[in-house]
Amino acid sequence: MNSINIGMIGYKFMGKAHSHAYRDLPMFFPKSIRPEMKVICGRNPEAVAEAASQFGWEEHTTDWKELLKRDDIDLIDINAPSDAHKEIAMEAAKAGKHIFCEKPLALTLDDSREMLAAVEAAGVKHMVGFNYRFAPAVMLAKKLIDEGRLGDIYHFRAWFLQDWIMDPDFPLVWRLQKEVAGSGSHGDLGAHLIDMAHYLVGDMTEVIGMSETFIKERPIPEEMTGLSATSSKSSEKGPVTVDDATLFLARFSNGALGSFEATRFAAGHRSTNSFEINGSKGSVIFDFERMNELQVYFTDDKEDVQGFRRVLATDAAHAYSEAWWPAGHTIGYEHTFIHSFVELMDAFREDRQPVPNFVDGVKCQQVLEAVDLSIEKRQWIQISDL
Amino acid sequence: MNSINIGMIGYKFMGKAHSHAYRDLPMFFPKSIRPEMKVICGRNPEAVAEAASQFGWEEHTTDWKELLKRDDIDLIDINAPSDAHKEIAMEAAKAGKHIFCEKPLALTLDDSREMLAAVEAAGVKHMVGFNYRFAPAVMLAKKLIDEGRLGDIYHFRAWFLQDWIMDPDFPLVWRLQKEVAGSGSHGDLGAHLIDMAHYLVGDMTEVIGMSETFIKERPIPEEMTGLSATSSKSSEKGPVTVDDATLFLARFSNGALGSFEATRFAAGHRSTNSFEINGSKGSVIFDFERMNELQVYFTDDKEDVQGFRRVLATDAAHAYSEAWWPAGHTIGYEHTFIHSFVELMDAFREDRQPVPNFVDGVKCQQVLEAVDLSIEKRQWIQISDL
Amino acid sequence: MNSINIGMIGYKFMGKAHSHAYRDLPMFFPKSIRPEMKVICGRNPEAVAEAASQFGWEEHTTDWKELLKRDDIDLIDINAPSDAHKEIAMEAAKAGKHIFCEKPLALTLDDSREMLAAVEAAGVKHMVGFNYRFAPAVMLAKKLIDEGRLGDIYHFRAWFLQDWIMDPDFPLVWRLQKEVAGSGSHGDLGAHLIDMAHYLVGDMTEVIGMSETFIKERPIPEEMTGLSATSSKSSEKGPVTVDDATLFLARFSNGALGSFEATRFAAGHRSTNSFEINGSKGSVIFDFERMNELQVYFTDDKEDVQGFRRVLATDAAHAYSEAWWPAGHTIGYEHTFIHSFVELMDAFREDRQPVPNFVDGVKCQQVLEAVDLSIEKRQWIQISDL
Amino acid sequence: MNSINIGMIGYKFMGKAHSHAYRDLPMFFPKSIRPEMKVICGRNPEAVAEAASQFGWEEHTTDWKELLKRDDIDLIDINAPSDAHKEIAMEAAKAGKHIFCEKPLALTLDDSREMLAAVEAAGVKHMVGFNYRFAPAVMLAKKLIDEGRLGDIYHFRAWFLQDWIMDPDFPLVWRLQKEVAGSGSHGDLGAHLIDMAHYLVGDMTEVIGMSETFIKERPIPEEMTGLSATSSKSSEKGPVTVDDATLFLARFSNGALGSFEATRFAAGHRSTNSFEINGSKGSVIFDFERMNELQVYFTDDKEDVQGFRRVLATDAAHAYSEAWWPAGHTIGYEHTFIHSFVELMDAFREDRQPVPNFVDGVKCQQVLEAVDLSIEKRQWIQISDL
Repeated sequence: MNSINIGMIGYKFMGKAHSHAYRDLPMFFPKSIRPEMKVICGRNPEAVAEAASQFGWEEHTTDWKELLKRDDIDLIDINAPSDAHKEIAMEAAKAGKHIFCEKPLALTLDDSREMLAAVEAAGVKHMVGFNYRFAPAVMLAKKLIDEGRLGDIYHFRAWFLQDWIMDPDFPLVWRLQKEVAGSGSHGDLGAHLIDMAHYLVGDMTEVIGMSETFIKERPIPEEMTGLSATSSKSSEKGPVTVDDATLFLARFSNGALGSFEATRFAAGHRSTNSFEINGSKGSVIFDFERMNELQVYFTDDKEDVQGFRRVLATDAAHAYSEAWWPAGHTIGYEHTFIHSFVELMDAFREDRQPVPNFVDGVKCQQVLEAVDLSIEKRQWIQISDL
Repeated sequence: MNSINIGMIGYKFMGKAHSHAYRDLPMFFPKSIRPEMKVICGRNPEAVAEAASQFGWEEHTTDWKELLKRDDIDLIDINAPSDAHKEIAMEAAKAGKHIFCEKPLALTLDDSREMLAAVEAAGVKHMVGFNYRFAPAVMLAKKLIDEGRLGDIYHFRAWFLQDWIMDPDFPLVWRLQKEVAGSGSHGDLGAHLIDMAHYLVGDMTEVIGMSETFIKERPIPEEMTGLSATSSKSSEKGPVTVDDATLFLARFSNGALGSFEATRFAAGHRSTNSFEINGSKGSVIFDFERMNELQVYFTDDKEDVQGFRRVLATDAAHAYSEAWWPAGHTIGYEHTFIHSFVELMDAFREDRQPVPNFVDGVKCQQVLEAVDLSIEKRQWIQISDL
Repeated sequence: MNSINIGMIGYKFMGKAHSHAYRDLPMFFPKSIRPEMKVICGRNPEAVAEAASQFGWEEHTTDWKELLKRDDIDLIDINAPSDAHKEIAMEAAKAGKHIFCEKPLALTLDDSREMLAAVEAAGVKHMVGFNYRFAPAVMLAKKLIDEGRLGDIYHFRAWFLQDWIMDPDFPLVWRLQKEVAGSGSHGDLGAHLIDMAHYLVGDMTEVIGMSETFIKERPIPEEMTGLSATSSKSSEKGPVTVDDATLFLARFSNGALGSFEATRFAAGHRSTNSFEINGSKGSVIFDFERMNELQVYFTDDKEDVQGFRRVLATDAAHAYSEAWWPAGHTIGYEHTFIHSFVELMDAFREDRQPVPNFVDGVKCQQVLEAVDLSIEKRQWIQISDL
Repeated sequence: MNSINIGMIGYKFMGKAHSHAYRDLPMFFPKSIRPEMKVICGRNPEAVAEAASQFGWEEHTTDWKELLKRDDIDLIDINAPSDAHKEIAMEAAKAGKHIFCEKPLALTLDDSREMLAAVEAAGVKHMVGFNYRFAPAVMLAKKLIDEGRLGDIYHFRAWFLQDWIMDPDFPLVWRLQKEVAGSGSHGDLGAHLIDMAHYLVGDMTEVIGMSETFIKERPIPEEMTGLSATSSKSSEKGPVTVDDATLFLARFSNGALGSFEATRFAAGHRSTNSFEINGSKGSVIFDFERMNELQVYFTDDKEDVQGFRRVLATDAAHAYSEAWWPAGHTIGYEHTFIHSFVELMDAFREDRQPVPNFVDGVKCQQVLEAVDLSIEKRQWIQISDL
C-alpha cells in the first residue's frame, strides 16, 4: 500500500487545515504512505467547488452518502460541524471506510460510544483530531514522562484561554449554540486539555466543575462562515446556550491532582493553550502561543544552576524535526495536523490503530460529560460512574 | 504623635523581616510616624538576646506577659508560630495594645473571630500581615481595577507554587504539624492568594476544594529553627498532618470565577506567588518571583499593537516609588514589609484602622475553613454558612 | 496573466523551502498569480529527480543552460551555492527570464553590480531572497516606522547568533570555504541584518568592523549535503577561510547609530536573528526564534502602564494574517518564503519590480564589502566610496 | 578591629544608597566588621543636616577638609559629583584615610592614575563603586567562568540602555555637562559595562567607538538636585556637552570579541544593564531589570533538553543568599551596595585590598579614554598605548 484515498467532509477552518496537511505531507515525509486528495464534500455547491480548487482536491460533491458508496475512497475525514459527526461516522463505518474524525467525536458520551462500537465492529481504522499532541514540544514532554525523567507526577494544571467572543456584539455563531456545538469553551477548548491530560498523565478518577455564560444574549447573525459571521447591531438577539468558561478539578488514577480552565473571556489571550506538569524529578511547561518551546526543569541539576530551561524543540533530537528546517527555525500551528496525518499513515503501514483514536475520543467525552454532570449536581462525579 | 513604641514577639524568619522593615522605614519614609524598636521577645534567652543585638532592638525579654504590662509599649507585633497568635493577641487587646499580627490570624475561624471581637472591644488598631498587597506592582493592579480600567472582572486565577519540601527526607518541621501550623500549603500559601483575591476582586460566595499530602511520613528533626531543621537519615519518622497541596474553585459575589492552587510540590518553583485577572476591558498578570513587574493588557489598545505590556512598577507613577531608587532600579521581598508598616503608621497618623486588618484576617480564615469543610464533605460550601 | 512558470536551480535547503512556498501559495493566496512548478535543476541527476518527485516539480534537469532556452519558463529561481549565482543570473537575464535569486546576490560587490546591470538591461523582474522581511511581526515594525509611530530613529542594534559549528570536529563544509561561500557569518547571517537595517531604518553612511575565525582548521568532509556533511575524525584537516563572527558599527543617513553582530559561536542560540530599534516615540524588538511576536513600546502610553507589549502578529490587523489561521495560531519559518513569493507574484500582476530586488541585493553587498574593507584597513569606510 | 568609622562626602542618590547599605549591613552580616556611620558631609548645611537625620549619621559637616583631620574617622566614602573625586581622594590619602570612591574614579585617566599612586603611596585601602559586580546572579556568572564551566570565552556583548533624558525639554543637569560629569552615557553607563567585562572576561587590547549627542541643546535648570532638576519651558537653553550614546567594539587579551553600547535614548528601557557571554562550553545572560536571574546554557546538557535555564540566584548555593530570605524571595538594587561594603569590611578583616579597587578604576578609565580617543581619531586604539 503506497497511498490512501481520502474523502473529506467539511471545508471551513478545519477543512482547510486538513487539506493543507494532506498537501504538504508527501513533500516533508516522502517515506510515508501518500494521502491522495480525492474528494471534498460540503453542503454549499459553489463553496465546496471553490474549496476543491483552492485546496487541491480532485473532485467535489455535496452528497456525503454518495461519497461513502465509492469504492475508490479508503478514508473519510469528518470535519463538518460537531452535530454531524455521529451520523456520518456511523454510516462510514458501515461502509467499511477508515475514519479520521475531528474532535469532539460527538455531542454526547452515548453517541461517542456508539461510534466507537461501530468502528470496532467494522474493523476499520479510526483516529480523532487531537492535534496538539503532535507539537514536537508536547511530544518532548511525553518522552520525558515516559522515560521517568519527571518522576512521579504530582500536578497537572492546564488552561486554554481565548478572547475572541468578549465583545457582547459578537454574533450568535453556531459555536455558541448548544444544539450544534454540544458545548462552548468546555467542549471546544477544554476537550483539548482533557486529551492532553490523558496523553501525558493518564486517566482521571473524579472531577468537579463550575461554568458560566457571561454574555447571555447575542445578536443573531444573518450569515455564518467558520469562526466569523456577519450581523447588524440592530439585529434580533438570541440566547447563548453554551458555556463561556468552564473550570474543573480532577484526581488522576496515579494520585496526581488536576486543575483545568477553559474560557473565551480572557482578554489578551488569543489562544493560550497551556499546561504545566510537576513531578518528583522535574517539571515541564508548555504554551501553544510559543508552541516550539518547552520549559523543562530537573531537580537533579547542579545546585547552583537549577532553573527552567527554555528548550526549542527544533533540534535533531526532537520529534519530526528531521522533516523540517535547521535547528532554531520554528514551525507553526498547521504542522500539528501534518504530524497527525503522519501518525495516521504510519498506522496504515504498520497495520495498527492510530493514536489518538475513538477510544481516546470516548474517554475525553466521558470526562466532559462527568464535568457537566458535576456542575448540574454540584458534587464530585466518579468518572467510572459514566 | 511622632513615634510608636514596638514590642515584637517572635524573632525568626518573620521577626527578621519585620525588624528590618522597622529599621529602614524612617530612612525612606521620613515623614511617616517613626516605629521605635523597643523590645523583642522570644522563648530562648540567648537567641533572643542575639536577635536584639543583630536586628537593633533596644531591649529583649522572654516573658511576653510582662511585655504587655509595660506602659511604654504602644504596639505588639506578633510573629511567633501560628498556634501562639490567639493567646497573645487576646491578652494584648486586653492590655490596650495596638496589634500587628502575622498571618494566619489564628488556627481556626472561631479563634480569629474571638480575636477580632477582642480588638474591637478594646478599641485598638489592628493589622494583619498580608504583605504581598504592598508590592507596587500589586498596588498597580488594584488601582487599575478600582479605576475601572479592567472593566467587569470575569476571572481570577492564582497559584502559589513552592518546592522546598519535595525531598522525602526533608524533616517534619513545625510547619508540617497541624497542631502548630493549623494547615500546610493551604494556610501558609493559599491564605495569601485568598487575601489577594479579597483585595483585588472582592468577596467569594462559595468554594469547593481538594487537597493531598504526597509524602505522608517524614524524619522527626532533632532541632528546628525557622524554615529549616536538622535531622539524620536514621532518625525516626512521624506523620505529616498537614496538606502538601490544596486547590479550590470559587465564585465571587460580582460573578467572577476563581481558581486557586497552593502547593509545596511544584519542582522548579521556589516561590511562584502569581495571579491573573481577566476583565471585560483588560487583564493583569503578576508573579512574585518578578515582583517589580505587572503584565497589563487593554482591549482598547490600537488593534495592530495589542499585547500584554511588561510594566516595571518602579516609575514615579507607581506606589511608594518616590521613596526608592530611579526608575528601573528594582526592590525586593523585604520592601513589602516596609510598605506594610508605612500603612500601619499612616493609620496612626490618620486615626483610622490600617488595611488589611483583623476583619480581613477573619475573612481569609473563613474561606480557608470553608475550603477545608468542602474537602471534608466533598461538596460546595457557601461562605455565608460559616 | 494567471500563472508564472518557474524553473528552479538548486534543490537543497533553500530549494526545499522555495518549493514548499510555491506549492502552498495558491492554496492560501488564491487570488494571487499562480506559480507553476515546471522544472527543477541540479547537478546530481538522481538527487534532482528525487527532489522533483518529492517537492512536486513537473520536470527535472541537470542542464541549467538548456533550461534557460525554454520558452515556457518565465522565471528562474536561483538557489544554488553562492558562487554559482552570478553566472546563472547573467545568462538568465540575457535569455530574458525574470529572476528570483537567493542571497547573497553574489560573492563580490562588482559581481552583484554586473548582475543588477544585466537585469536592468534585460528589462526583467528581479527579486532577492531576504525572506525575513516577510515575517508579519517584522512587517508590523516596518508599518510602525513608516507611519511615524516610533518617531525619529536613534538606534538600530541587531544580532544573528547561531551555534551550529561550535564543535571543532564539525567538518569543513562549503559554507566554511571562502571561494564557494564568499564569507562566513558575515555574508550568511550579517547580510540578513544589513538588509533588515536597510528595510527598516534606511541607508548607512559609514561602517567599521571586526571579525574572527575561532576554529582555524577543520576536518575535510568526505561528502557534503546542504548544511550537514559526513566526516571521520581521522580525516585530514583543512583551513577555515571564512569568518566565524563579524561585528560592526555603523552610522545611518538619518543620524541613527547601528550595531551589528553575526556569529556562529553563540552557545545556546540555534538561530537568534534579532533586532531592536529605538526611536523618539517608541521602540520595537524582534527575535526570529519567536517570529510571531514583536515587542512594542510607546513613549506616550499612560504613565502608570508603560512597558513593552508582546504583540502576537497573528491578528486580522497584521500582514498576511487573513490567509492563515485564527488569531493566536502561529506560523513558522517557511511562511516567510510564501510571503516573499506573494510579493513576487503581486509585482507581476501590478507590473512593477518586486521588493526587495537586486538593488537591495547590491546595497547589502556594498555594506558587506565596506565592512570587509574596514576590517582589512582597520579604519572607518564610507559606504559611498565603494 | 570590630568596626570602621566612616566619614561620607555626598548625600544625594549615591549618598542615600551608601547610607542604607551601611545601616543594613550589621543586621544581615552580623559577623562582618561593623561600619559606623559617624559623619556625613555636604555643601548645603540644611540639606546635609536633614540627610544626617534621615539616613542615621551621628554627625554632619560642610567642611570635608576638617573631616579628613579627625582621628576617629577610618574611611572616607566619596560620592560627591564626579569632578570632586580627585581632590578629595588625594587629600584623604594624604591624611592616611582608607577610601571608598564612587565611579567614575576621576574625570581623566591621568587623574585616576594620580589617585591610584596616592593611595598606594599612603598604604591605605581603596575601593571603587562598581556595585553591579555584587548582584548574586553576576557573581554566579563569575563563578561559572572561573570554574571553567563556560569554557573559552568567544563573545562578550553588553548594553546599558536608559531613557530618562529622551524628552528634549529635560533640563541640562550636571550629568549632561562635561566639566562636571566627565562624559555622558559613556562614563555613567558604559563604565559599568567595562568594569563588568574586566571582571568577567579580562583585559581588552584594543577598541574603536562611536558616539552621538541626539539633543544638542537643553533648558538650563534653575535648581538641581540629584538626578532631577526644575526648569521652566521659557528658560534659556545651553549646549549638551556630553554624549547621549556611545558604542564600541573591543578585542580581549584572551581572544574574545566585545561589543558595548551605552545610551540614554532607548525608549522603554528604564535601566537595562545587560550582558551576554558565549563560551565554548556555555553561555550566560544577565539583565539588571531582572537582577535576581541569570540565564545559563551548557553545551553538554542532554541533547533533547538543551536550552537556556532561568536560574533565580536566591538559592543557598548562591553568593550572599544565606544573609537574605528563603529561595525565591528576591532582593533589589540596594543590596548590591550592601554586598560591596561586605567585601570592603572583609578586606579590613583579612588585611588585603578590597576588589574592585582603584586599580580597577584606573583600568576602566583607561578603556573609557581609549574609546574617546578612538572616536576623536576615528581609528582603533591600543589600550596599552594609553
